[in-house]
Amino acid sequence: MLVTLLTDFGTADYYVAAMKGVILSRDPRIRLVDVSHDVPPHDVRAGAFTLMAVHRTFPPGTIHVGVVDPGVGSARRPILAIAGGQLFVGPDNGLFSHVLDREPHPRVVHLSDPGFFRHPVSPTFHGRDVFAPVAAALATGTDPGAMGEEITDFVRLDPIAPRRDPDGGVRASVVHVDRFGNCVTGISRDDLPPGAGGRGIRVEIGGREIRVLRRYFAEEGAEEGELFAIWGSAGLLEIAADRDSAARRLGVRPGDPVRLLPLPR
Amino acid sequence: MLVTLLTDFGTADYYVAAMKGVILSRDPRIRLVDVSHDVPPHDVRAGAFTLMAVHRTFPPGTIHVGVVDPGVGSARRPILAIAGGQLFVGPDNGLFSHVLDREPHPRVVHLSDPGFFRHPVSPTFHGRDVFAPVAAALATGTDPGAMGEEITDFVRLDPIAPRRDPDGGVRASVVHVDRFGNCVTGISRDDLPPGAGGRGIRVEIGGREIRVLRRYFAEEGAEEGELFAIWGSAGLLEIAADRDSAARRLGVRPGDPVRLLPLPR
Amino acid sequence: MLVTLLTDFGTADYYVAAMKGVILSRDPRIRLVDVSHDVPPHDVRAGAFTLMAVHRTFPPGTIHVGVVDPGVGSARRPILAIAGGQLFVGPDNGLFSHVLDREPHPRVVHLSDPGFFRHPVSPTFHGRDVFAPVAAALATGTDPGAMGEEITDFVRLDPIAPRRDPDGGVRASVVHVDRFGNCVTGISRDDLPPGAGGRGIRVEIGGREIRVLRRYFAEEGAEEGELFAIWGSAGLLEIAADRDSAARRLGVRPGDPVRLLPLPR
Repeated sequence: MLVTLLTDFGTADYYVAAMKGVILSRDPRIRLVDVSHDVPPHDVRAGAFTLMAVHRTFPPGTIHVGVVDPGVGSARRPILAIAGGQLFVGPDNGLFSHVLDREPHPRVVHLSDPGFFRHPVSPTFHGRDVFAPVAAALATGTDPGAMGEEITDFVRLDPIAPRRDPDGGVRASVVHVDRFGNCVTGISRDDLPPGAGGRGIRVEIGGREIRVLRRYFAEEGAEEGELFAIWGSAGLLEIAADRDSAARRLGVRPGDPVRLLPLPR
Repeated sequence: MLVTLLTDFGTADYYVAAMKGVILSRDPRIRLVDVSHDVPPHDVRAGAFTLMAVHRTFPPGTIHVGVVDPGVGSARRPILAIAGGQLFVGPDNGLFSHVLDREPHPRVVHLSDPGFFRHPVSPTFHGRDVFAPVAAALATGTDPGAMGEEITDFVRLDPIAPRRDPDGGVRASVVHVDRFGNCVTGISRDDLPPGAGGRGIRVEIGGREIRVLRRYFAEEGAEEGELFAIWGSAGLLEIAADRDSAARRLGVRPGDPVRLLPLPR
Repeated sequence: MLVTLLTDFGTADYYVAAMKGVILSRDPRIRLVDVSHDVPPHDVRAGAFTLMAVHRTFPPGTIHVGVVDPGVGSARRPILAIAGGQLFVGPDNGLFSHVLDREPHPRVVHLSDPGFFRHPVSPTFHGRDVFAPVAAALATGTDPGAMGEEITDFVRLDPIAPRRDPDGGVRASVVHVDRFGNCVTGISRDDLPPGAGGRGIRVEIGGREIRVLRRYFAEEGAEEGELFAIWGSAGLLEIAADRDSAARRLGVRPGDPVRLLPLPR
């Protein structure tokens, strides 16, 4: 069985390895895959975006453990989410929100049975003592339904889907900036104003207006640093710069607004 | 069989992958787990802390390869340590010191038989040519006792356990600063002055005195940056700051002194 | 079957995990090993060096996926290279160039059959949609010869092997700077002027001349920062500094010239 791990623990500390040790102590045959441990510290939104963008590439039944958990040890609940044929184990703080928004008929269970935990449970490290042992139990055949009561009042983040303006434009925000400085927006093809895309595009971001829509990054004869829009690999519109960081050029960060302007008729 | 890897090689170079290639060339079924490759370069103490904090989460028989090895190629010995039902392979420079301090009846073997090495042995990369092949041999059933003579004069670091002051206070040091800026001290619950803990705490660190002992990190209504003590997940007292880096606030680094003051009666 | 991954994607984004998800969706038993994901963005030469330095430590039949691919989506071809009993999948931009230079009778195939790809193919993420599925197909038994037509006009980087000067000296360049600041040059033992090595060495780099050739890094009584040459673990001459970064001391970067001067008779 496949267990993936996403955390904001970084890779310099022992935290990720401790989670792996706990899982492999339950069954050394469990396959572990790192999604990322370099989620910015405490940045639940960044983790939520990453899980949304990646989970469908994994096979059915995959168990995703997500630990971006500034409220560890407080009253926030540990949960198991079941969505899109996969399982998600982590804190009830919105980390699985975008996945739950996009998959039909999600179910969420409150992990209320300490019998599945590692004891004593450290109030500062539920990744090791709560989420890892629960994932290991699921990976070795425990029925998700046996893990607690279903809940419906789980925490939801603001959806990344944009809002339509009266003039036909679209208001969204930057949901992620990747290593290359590409700015991923919340805009998908379904959000385009009528006629946009084929005929061109007008994107307002960081005080600039961008009218170039490329099909891929490298373009012969393009000027270094030229800003352009592009449909990214998560199915969302990205703003990029030729051989440069668009985020740095535009002074843009996650959460900043981006606007798709209506095209002139 | 499970083999973990801890190094200061970073992840940008080919060094870690070369070790994995050597191990998997011996038997591709060996399970590899990264503990960390972001130990600060040449920082044997940081590596020793990490191995101490993490090894007990792994199953019995796990083989831990540790390579933080500024003396590679010199007269320092390659060793195999057997402690707590697990095996530790690496340089004789104290890297396994804290594990050996805490586990009963440890044994250490000098890896003196070049028959277990990969040849030619590069004097600059024993991780690939000495420690990886030894770990692979152990993982595929070679008897640890066949690997060399037992030694007792292996290198020991200063223990992280603190010293008691005549006034009942405790002198320790910061043994680790983690990604979040939490300062892990060498103080465990057994070191507390009588009456401390329940009644409160007084910690002197970085020229400040800290009197708040929290049970978990997130506290409703707390001021951002508030300094507090907390029992961390390694069983040691940590100094943390609310949604901030305590290490930066205090100007504290590993090795810096920390003092537990006696409580007034 | 063993599949390794080398990219410039970093570890903060979902890109590497997406590739792993695609591969494991094909067959969850495929063994995955990360070579590095911290190749500097778009630095094909750095990736090419790493693959050259590491591939021989892996067992025969290993499939290496390499994605340092600034031209993704453009006319650059996806290729499969067969060399040294191993397979290499990635873009035709020189990434496998140094491996192909060093292994006898390499073959290169143009991956022209979209039947092996994941659809729809994102023009910005061939790692997930082209190279990962091809690697998964190879790992599950697809015949490399069935994947496309053999080509001979694949892209080659300038070889890292140095040129001999009329005076017996050798002109090379820095091919890599590692985490420790060691400067790996393109010079191998075969390139030494007659008599050099045993009798001493003279290396010109960063405006300095270095005459010390050490056998290993740590030397008793050496001055901190002392510059020296050393035969590195990739079989190439490196310039290092005692407990310091030679690259920083010398102000040297990959691509900078290094010269081996003839020894006085």
